[in-house]
Amino acid sequence: MKRHPDNPLITPDILAPSAPGLKVLGAFNAGVTVYNNQIILLLRVAERCIEKPEFVSVPIYSFANDKSEFKIINFRKNDPDVFLKDTRGVVYKGIDYLSTLSTIRIARSNDGINFIVDNKPFIFPEVPEEKYGCEDARVQKFSNEFFITYSAVSQDGWATSLATTRDFKSLNRKGMIFYPLDKDVCLFPEKINGRYYALHRPHNEGFGKPSVWISSSDNLLDWGGHKCLIRPRENKWESQKIGAGGPPIKTDKGWLVIYHGKGDNSVYHLFTLLLDKSDPTKILSRADVPFFSPEKSYETNGFFPNVVFSNGHIEQPNGEIFIYYGACDETTNLLITTVDELLADVMK
Amino acid sequence: MKRHPDNPLITPDILAPSAPGLKVLGAFNAGVTVYNNQIILLLRVAERCIEKPEFVSVPIYSFANDKSEFKIINFRKNDPDVFLKDTRGVVYKGIDYLSTLSTIRIARSNDGINFIVDNKPFIFPEVPEEKYGCEDARVQKFSNEFFITYSAVSQDGWATSLATTRDFKSLNRKGMIFYPLDKDVCLFPEKINGRYYALHRPHNEGFGKPSVWISSSDNLLDWGGHKCLIRPRENKWESQKIGAGGPPIKTDKGWLVIYHGKGDNSVYHLFTLLLDKSDPTKILSRADVPFFSPEKSYETNGFFPNVVFSNGHIEQPNGEIFIYYGACDETTNLLITTVDELLADVMK
Repeated sequence: MKRHPDNPLITPDILAPSAPGLKVLGAFNAGVTVYNNQIILLLRVAERCIEKPEFVSVPIYSFANDKSEFKIINFRKNDPDVFLKDTRGVVYKGIDYLSTLSTIRIARSNDGINFIVDNKPFIFPEVPEEKYGCEDARVQKFSNEFFITYSAVSQDGWATSLATTRDFKSLNRKGMIFYPLDKDVCLFPEKINGRYYALHRPHNEGFGKPSVWISSSDNLLDWGGHKCLIRPRENKWESQKIGAGGPPIKTDKGWLVIYHGKGDNSVYHLFTLLLDKSDPTKILSRADVPFFSPEKSYETNGFFPNVVFSNGHIEQPNGEIFIYYGACDETTNLLITTVDELLADVMK
Repeated sequence: MKRHPDNPLITPDILAPSAPGLKVLGAFNAGVTVYNNQIILLLRVAERCIEKPEFVSVPIYSFANDKSEFKIINFRKNDPDVFLKDTRGVVYKGIDYLSTLSTIRIARSNDGINFIVDNKPFIFPEVPEEKYGCEDARVQKFSNEFFITYSAVSQDGWATSLATTRDFKSLNRKGMIFYPLDKDVCLFPEKINGRYYALHRPHNEGFGKPSVWISSSDNLLDWGGHKCLIRPRENKWESQKIGAGGPPIKTDKGWLVIYHGKGDNSVYHLFTLLLDKSDPTKILSRADVPFFSPEKSYETNGFFPNVVFSNGHIEQPNGEIFIYYGACDETTNLLITTVDELLADVMK
């Protein structure tokens, strides 16, 4: 298992802002697939407004007549109706505005290392339930169609929506598939016993902590059969919450899952989990310790320090697995390993 | 609209405990239907252990070999491993135990006023996702089968499960239909444009407050098409959260919904809402003010003061509607009104 020496592969400074007046803060947490012999990243791009001394500026989408329009609103800092909440937002006359907005952009590469990133978002708020942004895409191909799950953020919190594409040009929204609060949704690559399966992370709480759940569906739109699959354990790596990564990998031994834990001091780690091939609600093995933690300076220092987060990977023809991961909610990076190495990790 | 003079109709003191060592704290929040010419209440019955000076006693269900067993655990108050959280529970060696446990019992009546309550629960923790109790049933009949939605409480929080019965003797569990955190689930009485519909209340949060959502299904098991229907408004009656009551009532004007608001000082109120007959995701009218609030002493004083909460009602042959409501999470009461009166309320 090794980090690519060119890490970080994508940094926010190489991205053009999507509109005048914006700056890019992060290009991270990519969904990954292959299309036309290229590796495609569906990058989460976080942007905020360029600061002006007398104003607080927020990027927003407004909705009218079923259309959305992007604009920047400038609030005078000395306006008595303006209330600065924290670095994340502003309240103006009782209405919340966010200072940062994420959309999903496509990056393309022939070698999986050098990427060209689109200047404009591919998935951005076009419907009210995405008003505050689109985040953390995961992608799974079924026949010739790519199914993309992503966090839809709005005044109601974060939910997960589904959209499809055949060409990474046009997008077909299929609507919300997991109501809020729910994120970290990955689809299994094939039907199992006639049903589609997904891992997801409702923000369940009470006597437990946010956990990884499994659900199933006949049509990828209506979901049921909900079951809590794994809960955070009492250890320093997953003491706060856990959530699934990219689509489970089919192996001889079972479904190999990569998931993240948020542990002590809000440090993120990556773990392996193995599920039964014919019944993915059954756990075969779960690694005791993470296989990957923040160590390099680009993982420990940045916008949100000590985060390594993966929501996409690719099996290469030579048996390698390219795990793309976001570091510090800022950059996109590559970890190279193999199925065998991950299986050894989960079964040791 | 008038309260029945015999209110409260059911008080906890008339109920036998379901096991030795328990006492009944409340018999409230009933799902309501008609079976064999009787009015059936599916009562939420909350019980706790009879106190002993040197012990903290908790009622629990333990699970082994797919069977559940009820028992009472007595923790010595002076045991250094025992940590009393608050009145709701105990932590022993890192594991949470609840001091109160709810199950669902059947009450039967010929006149809708005088009820005989079963001594044993009809729905009680038989599967791990109901470990901490079964609460707030709602019931809807489709052909000859009664579909019961109820809160399944566990270490993962509260979710909503579905079970069916044809005779109110045997129960067929259909599993969890809304993952946590989600409660206040009522089914529409018939398919609309080929789909079943439900109102539910995810614990969405962020920039909003817990709201009423609508979802749809082909089979009552897998749900999709999630949409936020109504959010709490900035008023004193629903400043904290809102949630749907019993099944929507079909009228000439549209689907009439009764919902509750939790407002300032945690006082609960009941409101009316009117949805489009052929598209229940469309709001026709929403009352500005509640039609019912706690006033009588049995509504303002009790286990949880100032709560009126309804999850069931019956249309009588004479056009009256019997709205059963829980008061103070303790008693069951009856409010008598008519469809016309509720429609006038929602459209005024």
